[in-house]
Amino acid sequence: MSEQTDSRARIHMGHGSGGRATGRLIQELFVKHLHNERLDPLDDGALLDLSGSLAMSTDAFVVDPIFFPGGDIGKLAVCGTVNDVAMCGAVPRALSAAFILEEGLLLEDLERIARSMGAQAREAGVEVVTGDTKVVPRGHADGVYVTTAGVGERIEGVRLGGALARPGDVIMVSGPLGDHGAAIMAVRAGIDLEGDLRSDCASVAGAVVRLLQAVPGVHVLRDPTRGGLASVVVEIAEASKVGVELEETAIPVSEATLAACEILGLDPLSLACEGRFVAILPAELEDAACQALSEEAVASGLCRIGRVVDDHPGKVVLRTQIGGTRLVDQAEGELLPRIC
Amino acid sequence: MSEQTDSRARIHMGHGSGGRATGRLIQELFVKHLHNERLDPLDDGALLDLSGSLAMSTDAFVVDPIFFPGGDIGKLAVCGTVNDVAMCGAVPRALSAAFILEEGLLLEDLERIARSMGAQAREAGVEVVTGDTKVVPRGHADGVYVTTAGVGERIEGVRLGGALARPGDVIMVSGPLGDHGAAIMAVRAGIDLEGDLRSDCASVAGAVVRLLQAVPGVHVLRDPTRGGLASVVVEIAEASKVGVELEETAIPVSEATLAACEILGLDPLSLACEGRFVAILPAELEDAACQALSEEAVASGLCRIGRVVDDHPGKVVLRTQIGGTRLVDQAEGELLPRIC
Repeated sequence: MSEQTDSRARIHMGHGSGGRATGRLIQELFVKHLHNERLDPLDDGALLDLSGSLAMSTDAFVVDPIFFPGGDIGKLAVCGTVNDVAMCGAVPRALSAAFILEEGLLLEDLERIARSMGAQAREAGVEVVTGDTKVVPRGHADGVYVTTAGVGERIEGVRLGGALARPGDVIMVSGPLGDHGAAIMAVRAGIDLEGDLRSDCASVAGAVVRLLQAVPGVHVLRDPTRGGLASVVVEIAEASKVGVELEETAIPVSEATLAACEILGLDPLSLACEGRFVAILPAELEDAACQALSEEAVASGLCRIGRVVDDHPGKVVLRTQIGGTRLVDQAEGELLPRIC
Repeated sequence: MSEQTDSRARIHMGHGSGGRATGRLIQELFVKHLHNERLDPLDDGALLDLSGSLAMSTDAFVVDPIFFPGGDIGKLAVCGTVNDVAMCGAVPRALSAAFILEEGLLLEDLERIARSMGAQAREAGVEVVTGDTKVVPRGHADGVYVTTAGVGERIEGVRLGGALARPGDVIMVSGPLGDHGAAIMAVRAGIDLEGDLRSDCASVAGAVVRLLQAVPGVHVLRDPTRGGLASVVVEIAEASKVGVELEETAIPVSEATLAACEILGLDPLSLACEGRFVAILPAELEDAACQALSEEAVASGLCRIGRVVDDHPGKVVLRTQIGGTRLVDQAEGELLPRIC
């Protein structure tokens, strides 16, 4: 490391003391980029005015690398939790954010992450209302881990759940699958696809809210993150005790992600997305769903990829391009560590 | 490491894959100890039925060691967030819990932590409703980090804030200070005080709710965690633009903690508590507060330790045992890393 690099300001243990250095870090970095009426008093928690039924979700983000084409750990930590709250049929309103920082982390990297969280929160219409900062000694973490939790107000008249898929339902996805996973793995492998490969990391909450308000009869909503489409659809087939048939030719995968999958030996069906959703709904609602999402950029790739059937309950069958079928299952072990 | 030890089941990268191994870990370990109607469906988030105004708080826990006299990281992760929600004047209702596990962590250690969280949640009257599990490769974290977020229903008629202390208010603490910090530091230093030194880790939510229902005129509530009493009182003096006078002889510190402080060169005023609270309220409400808390075991050490004054706004003055005074300030650097 050059002297110049080494002289840049870094996180030290004092930033986690709860004393002056912590206070300055919070004011000059986190409040600067995330401020809002609820966060700014910096009390032990934040007061919220929400009404009706709520949904709550949380995710820990440990992605490696922390900056990647199409996003960073901060954007991911906002989108991931916002999307999970939306998948519950709720309008995301408030996030908490807890940071575990490794001693030696560059302050400019942390600021880039905080700025990105602020921008993404504004875009998703949500506020980071409360937080926490801990520092662990060098070697006891890997740069920065961010855990967000979110609460949202449930949309009335909507009832969603992984156990609610029914034979006759159609299975739709909002866009090409696996771009996030492929982008992360390509960076790690040092593969350059001329900038075509970017994470799909985005908030889908706006699109989902519009869909549910127009089509409250949706049965299941899921974002195919870790484990990808395969994991999500198998989970749903098992929980709902129904069969699922997917059409391989109908499943959208970008050319760049396909190329990365070929080079790296990955299956796009198991690759994580961070800005897509899977919707399962009665076939007669498909047109209404397409209509509702027609102006939503994050759902511009919306298409039907399969159906829920009576046969082979708990199993997911893929009809392949060449006319055969194969069983889709969840990965048993860990293929893609630290993808989110 | 002996073969016997090595053969015990450990966390592997597959536990973080989002596939089968993750599912089994969640079912057989987390759901087993934390289960409730909201958690059990294991959807992307949980549905809550809360009413009125809410409070939300979060904390990341990185305590070292993860097991200590009087508690463990799981109990701490429940109590810490439950207490922060209570400090906002709210009845804690739901928690999220996100785990960052290091490859190689013993499953029996993780189960002990989950069991402890379940027991503490039941005791505190709160449910863990949603969660997340990530695994990072050996060497990229230190055993286990737990981040909890909590939401609670605000008690009507209560208005609390660090900026609301007023001259004439009394400052009370619920019991002896610094036991948590002293217990952790003693373990790390290998000091044995014959079992007398135990963390005060506990939920104070029940006591706080009883206090606020009986005495809604409380101005400030804080739990003196990282940075201890000193950090909390200085923060309040600065935010409220008032002076604070503390009486050293009135500040309760256990004999074991005093002994540890002498051996280790620590100041009990800067040591973390995890089961105490500081209440600042008009002097005329002191008797009512004592009455309200008279049957609460976690507040059995309740006493007045000082007053809010007009003089020296923003400053905290300690009247010492020998009749002098000294200025109390927050620590500038990090004295006690990974205390919570």
